[in-house]
Amino acid sequence: MTAQDNNGGFTRRTLLGTTAAMTAAGATGIVGGLGLGRFRNGTEARAQPAPAQPVPSPHGRTEVAPGELDEYYVFASSGQTGEVRILGLPSMRELMRIPVFNRCSATGWGQTNESLKILTEGLTPATRERLKAMGGVWQNGDLHHPHLSFTDGTYDGRYVFANDKANTRLARIRCDIMKCDKIVELPNQYTIHGMRPQKYPRTGYLFCNGEYEVPLPNDGSVLDDPTKYWSIFSAVDGDTMRVAWQVIVDGNLDNTDADYQGKYAFSTCYNSEKGMTLAEMMAKEQDWVVIFNIKRIEEAVKKGDFKEMNGVPVVDGRQGSPYTRYVPVPNSPHGMHTAPDGIHIFANGKLSPTVTVMDVRLFDQLFDDKIKPRDVVVAEPELGLGPLHTECDGRGNAYTTLFLDSQIVKWNIDAARRAFKGEKVNPIIQKLDVHYQPGHNHTSMGQTKEADGNWLISLNKFSKDRFLNVGPLKPENDQLIDISGDEMVLVHDGPSFAEPHDVTIVHRSKINPLHVWKRDDPFFADAVKRAKADGITLENDSKVIRDGNTVRVYMTSSAPAFALDSFAVKQDDQVTVYVTNVDDIEDLTHGFCIVNYGINMEIGPQQTSSVTFKADRPGVYWYFCTWFCHAMHMEMRGRMFVEPRNV
Amino acid sequence: MTAQDNNGGFTRRTLLGTTAAMTAAGATGIVGGLGLGRFRNGTEARAQPAPAQPVPSPHGRTEVAPGELDEYYVFASSGQTGEVRILGLPSMRELMRIPVFNRCSATGWGQTNESLKILTEGLTPATRERLKAMGGVWQNGDLHHPHLSFTDGTYDGRYVFANDKANTRLARIRCDIMKCDKIVELPNQYTIHGMRPQKYPRTGYLFCNGEYEVPLPNDGSVLDDPTKYWSIFSAVDGDTMRVAWQVIVDGNLDNTDADYQGKYAFSTCYNSEKGMTLAEMMAKEQDWVVIFNIKRIEEAVKKGDFKEMNGVPVVDGRQGSPYTRYVPVPNSPHGMHTAPDGIHIFANGKLSPTVTVMDVRLFDQLFDDKIKPRDVVVAEPELGLGPLHTECDGRGNAYTTLFLDSQIVKWNIDAARRAFKGEKVNPIIQKLDVHYQPGHNHTSMGQTKEADGNWLISLNKFSKDRFLNVGPLKPENDQLIDISGDEMVLVHDGPSFAEPHDVTIVHRSKINPLHVWKRDDPFFADAVKRAKADGITLENDSKVIRDGNTVRVYMTSSAPAFALDSFAVKQDDQVTVYVTNVDDIEDLTHGFCIVNYGINMEIGPQQTSSVTFKADRPGVYWYFCTWFCHAMHMEMRGRMFVEPRNV
Repeated sequence: MTAQDNNGGFTRRTLLGTTAAMTAAGATGIVGGLGLGRFRNGTEARAQPAPAQPVPSPHGRTEVAPGELDEYYVFASSGQTGEVRILGLPSMRELMRIPVFNRCSATGWGQTNESLKILTEGLTPATRERLKAMGGVWQNGDLHHPHLSFTDGTYDGRYVFANDKANTRLARIRCDIMKCDKIVELPNQYTIHGMRPQKYPRTGYLFCNGEYEVPLPNDGSVLDDPTKYWSIFSAVDGDTMRVAWQVIVDGNLDNTDADYQGKYAFSTCYNSEKGMTLAEMMAKEQDWVVIFNIKRIEEAVKKGDFKEMNGVPVVDGRQGSPYTRYVPVPNSPHGMHTAPDGIHIFANGKLSPTVTVMDVRLFDQLFDDKIKPRDVVVAEPELGLGPLHTECDGRGNAYTTLFLDSQIVKWNIDAARRAFKGEKVNPIIQKLDVHYQPGHNHTSMGQTKEADGNWLISLNKFSKDRFLNVGPLKPENDQLIDISGDEMVLVHDGPSFAEPHDVTIVHRSKINPLHVWKRDDPFFADAVKRAKADGITLENDSKVIRDGNTVRVYMTSSAPAFALDSFAVKQDDQVTVYVTNVDDIEDLTHGFCIVNYGINMEIGPQQTSSVTFKADRPGVYWYFCTWFCHAMHMEMRGRMFVEPRNV
Repeated sequence: MTAQDNNGGFTRRTLLGTTAAMTAAGATGIVGGLGLGRFRNGTEARAQPAPAQPVPSPHGRTEVAPGELDEYYVFASSGQTGEVRILGLPSMRELMRIPVFNRCSATGWGQTNESLKILTEGLTPATRERLKAMGGVWQNGDLHHPHLSFTDGTYDGRYVFANDKANTRLARIRCDIMKCDKIVELPNQYTIHGMRPQKYPRTGYLFCNGEYEVPLPNDGSVLDDPTKYWSIFSAVDGDTMRVAWQVIVDGNLDNTDADYQGKYAFSTCYNSEKGMTLAEMMAKEQDWVVIFNIKRIEEAVKKGDFKEMNGVPVVDGRQGSPYTRYVPVPNSPHGMHTAPDGIHIFANGKLSPTVTVMDVRLFDQLFDDKIKPRDVVVAEPELGLGPLHTECDGRGNAYTTLFLDSQIVKWNIDAARRAFKGEKVNPIIQKLDVHYQPGHNHTSMGQTKEADGNWLISLNKFSKDRFLNVGPLKPENDQLIDISGDEMVLVHDGPSFAEPHDVTIVHRSKINPLHVWKRDDPFFADAVKRAKADGITLENDSKVIRDGNTVRVYMTSSAPAFALDSFAVKQDDQVTVYVTNVDDIEDLTHGFCIVNYGINMEIGPQQTSSVTFKADRPGVYWYFCTWFCHAMHMEMRGRMFVEPRNV
């Protein structure tokens, strides 16, 4: 056997050797790239990997046969792709993409009037002005954390929320139509990283961590003076999608979560140093977790103990304030998770091999100054290198991703508590290799009080040699792990485009979308209103209305024809086309695309969509249906006549 | 058992009853929506479908275990999504998205200078002017047919080509880096529908069908006068990505293919009537296939028998010309396919239940007027309702999608020839239900002389009840069928976002992409050139160069740091940031994103990417790495200082 035959001639453990030798304080070593060092030579990983040893899954199989349905919905973020994806589990098949912070050619998201309203109305006035001047909307986002709305500690099937790290926005997706219906930009904050919903009594608030420190106001009057930089923690009202209040904090904020009692939210801080460079950010051996006292903050807002900034009450939560507590934890903590037992809170070490476990029942005493910050810590097990995120199975076990070790470690929470008290007990139950460098993980229903301990997805940032080579840009790897038995079993490699930063696994009983749009849906209420003013009933009338240089074209669509075979406008007219799909057949979506005009949009069954454009070029331009609808779909087309301006 | 328990209480055959009763001439019935009628009531399909009876696949299994690789690459179009997708087969997992005609938030496609050049340089001057006036590029496309370059009748692994129906463009993807490197807009043509590469001796030409009839020139001087409308057939040179020549035809053009001899291309015409409405387009009982004589057309161009229009030689190929022949076939033919035997050409009936089989060996005689057009027809089997596309297994069998019957029909070509001669033989071997309404299908290597007869993908336009409900917009369904045995066996339901209009299945031995970019790649040659003029070596130097109000920021990136911790510009500067990823580790992609500036791009290992923007807003704006690269990825960030214009 040559060196190339067996995964580059290195065994996995040999390759991980340098990493395994590192200590918690070995930050310099980490920066040196050791976590990835085993792939230094781009050719090493090219040989076909040895097939995994097939291990029988307790579930029997992961393949979902033709005609069968998946048991869980997976809502996956897509990171810098800016959309939310819906997968089925256990098949791990992508069922739908929901455009949010991106531009979608298929649906017209970012082009239809309906989507443009959603993409702009929740921006700060300054951003709206700025984008108007630049003649467009933001067409990228970095969508990190998709989380569902809660009622009483579990999913209620109303909404999925997701944050944009790139342009500091929070979006809401309606689960009945699986479309984004609201986007709000958070003022005073630059990036949202961690984002989680209030679990109890309901959502309620969305807690949004400001990761990057900037001067406030950030108008250029302060530039390179980090002593004047601050980070912000925001609570957004999930019903109105407006910022309820903000808290100014020391250090920065990374990930966040909320309790099951409705009293606290808490966030990791990896840069308590307020360093501006990598070395500065890692300088201290300790950072902290900030705990936010929701009731006290609400009272502060009520009684006026805040500063208003850009229309938002900003409470001062820096160290020493009654609204927050700062719990010291080892260097650069990352993931922040509440266990489904409603008691344990995990802060994951990243540069420390530990996970810090806090008991939420002690937080009242901490805020009443009856105990010291570190007294809320009840366990701090040493698990391996690069612990990033911890999820639970509802049976008392936790599962932590180890970025540097490329492993999932399963450990027992109670055993970790006992070890922390000095008992000679090893909380670690099993370590499982994943491929490679896991970030988030998620257990089925694991972020609710109904954690069922069936499945775990490990979201691995590198796939390297796990899939057919598709060029320098590789997919990531969402691995499915069966955790229903005593042992974790890896059952599926799931390639994915950039990047399923985080996922939420929801039992299908929680989600009940519509099959066909309702005609009174607020999504297209503006079109209904505009039509009414023109004396038009959208589902009945097809007509062209001219109003100076503004033309409104109303037409219905029913497979395989648009109600208008043609319409005429004049060059340079501002044209709005409203298409109402009067088919009421499930899955019968129409499209409206104008050839060589860069226009395309989706119109679902019983939906109205509209698009506005300038008829800048004279001639005959066919419009056609882009969503295959009928045997005569190709013939579903009509002509837009654009009369030249000199005629 | 209630009616709802068993797939809505209707057996599949009962539901298809109305469709099955239709005759070939039943166009009116088709228009009436019968093909979809069984789902009229949106609630019918909501009960969980009965699980498929598991049938052992001759291949044993379709699941690819963790650590194993797929055997085939599948290049899938995405229709109106505008991208090309790479799947693995048999797992049917999506391995990569290649942005082409769309805007991609993750990679910066449509924002980086490198992509903007590709998206604009091949447009007609008129379109370039027009888009410049509108301040942007087209951000949508309708990507229909992904086909690989050929040498000697099989794939050579150089390129994937794909057409845009929406904005009449042809794109080329380099298989070494799996990025689009050229896009050309076809002048004189409005929409490209069918597109296929020349198979022999090599690609060579890409044949592009103009589907929609328009006045030529289409400048508004002629509007509603269809007698002056024409369609165009184009041949694009795949090496230069320039239009070599065009042919003006009668009727319109739908799908196309080429022979294995390098002599002919042929296209279906569904609208020989030149009708402008649905009824007019279906009026005649017969349409035709147009055969193009490549050698004669090349000679015509050489000897000047053409009219130049917008810089392209346009040959007159209307009926009676020496360059074309028009073969009558039944009403509204659709798919056009050459069998891997190099002999048989299929025109699929759509409104006729037949597939017309022609023998390419007779085409010489046809062009020499020794036989009549219909003499090239050697079989015309009646297969079922709505035949759209026919593929082959290399063992003499053909597989035709039946849109209305929602079936794949397997039939024997030789038996069909014998039946056509009057022999009492039934060419039909098997019919298999698919779910639902199939358009294209594709067999593994089936469009090459190396068809291997292992797999078939049926691209079904509706999925209805086959997946968890995700709202009014449903996925489509790419079903995988094992055809290696005597019987077709359905083995996998593959949900997909709009829409894998067509796919190409390529054995993995044909594709060999790079793992890491080469520093001399032409993709970023402009950046190298610009840097050189500034005295910069991209992989070594990080520096800010000011040139009036124009600022060029050069920086390298190496996990987990950008070489510049910060850079300063002035408000309203025109800023170009060039990032060179000096990591040479496989899969170690960096991103460059500026917070609240709407900027993000991908930089693969050893790649340079650049983006240009106006620094319109003063203050401190962090830039960060968006592609997870290291344990300290979160800390990979720096500050852009924008000094206010009044300072």
